[in-house]
Amino acid sequence: MLVHHLYSGGKDSSLAAWVLTRLGYEVELVTVTFGLLDNWRFARETAKRLGFKHRVLKLPVEVLESAVETAIRDGHPNNAIQFIHEKALEALASMPDVVRVSDGTRRDDRVPFLDLPKARSLEDRFNVAYIRPLLGLGYKTIRELTERLFIVEIRESEELQKADYEVELRHLLRERGIDPLEIFPKRHYQSRVLGWKSL
Amino acid sequence: MLVHHLYSGGKDSSLAAWVLTRLGYEVELVTVTFGLLDNWRFARETAKRLGFKHRVLKLPVEVLESAVETAIRDGHPNNAIQFIHEKALEALASMPDVVRVSDGTRRDDRVPFLDLPKARSLEDRFNVAYIRPLLGLGYKTIRELTERLFIVEIRESEELQKADYEVELRHLLRERGIDPLEIFPKRHYQSRVLGWKSL
Repeated sequence: MLVHHLYSGGKDSSLAAWVLTRLGYEVELVTVTFGLLDNWRFARETAKRLGFKHRVLKLPVEVLESAVETAIRDGHPNNAIQFIHEKALEALASMPDVVRVSDGTRRDDRVPFLDLPKARSLEDRFNVAYIRPLLGLGYKTIRELTERLFIVEIRESEELQKADYEVELRHLLRERGIDPLEIFPKRHYQSRVLGWKSL
Repeated sequence: MLVHHLYSGGKDSSLAAWVLTRLGYEVELVTVTFGLLDNWRFARETAKRLGFKHRVLKLPVEVLESAVETAIRDGHPNNAIQFIHEKALEALASMPDVVRVSDGTRRDDRVPFLDLPKARSLEDRFNVAYIRPLLGLGYKTIRELTERLFIVEIRESEELQKADYEVELRHLLRERGIDPLEIFPKRHYQSRVLGWKSL
């Protein structure tokens, strides 16, 4: 029972991967890149520390370019991140031999988030099961599990070395001469898992 | 880390209880009754076979009477079942020393189901965490886990001996001279867990 799990190295996607193993699934972590940066290496490093198999999935740079245009037009990153996440799930689900895909999206997330029709559409179009281990958990539960399991580093997004697709989105904005802080919220903390608390 | 988990003896609430144990929680199963029937005994029997602690929570019969009126007025049971489920969660969450409540509701359930504002309201009003271990799982995933874990008996609702609050709802309808089959869908299969597949 192999699951291909979208992975950034952050605490949500790490916690979701742990839940999958607890349910008896074999887990392969998959980090998306557009090939502009090599920040996927941070996810690989964390995957290694946690003992998971890891692979990198390259998405067409056109997806990122389209997301950047959306973010500039909107003046905020929500629709851009949602767009990338849907494309990442579709790319994952269309890989050969993939029958189960998952991610670390939570009940309290606004983006990225697939509503019920979109979740079912993903499953039907690609004949996969879409598993979201954290969907039924609120912030209290996620916090208590995360604190029990992981050593976590929390920093402002601009400073954190991680493998979120937000990093390449910010990079391409900068390349277009736009300060990401005009698009992204000013104080935006993100997390990166450094390892298990006790093993 | 104790969770109080609403329990009917069916496969969804049994699977959710198992997931909670896999996440490291201690689980106490709680079956609701209105005191009209003793069908809570089926849940207790299943809880015992699965090795869980179990208690019975009596709700005021006025809740069931109000639900019956709603079901008669609507001509279908959805709002009645939703109403009972919300009252059951509130009663559970208001018990002394309860800090985590959970149930077996699924992504694909229409009722009973708490949308995000209702879920957060339950957490805020009673200062509890509300955990739904199956919310991020589709029918394929639930089926493969259930088949791996449980010996399940599936029958038509009218024949099945179980501890769902639907049973007392049907009973009170009959007492009011109304055939439950006028309210509930004709072919409505339900499940009851008989034990672990291998232990």
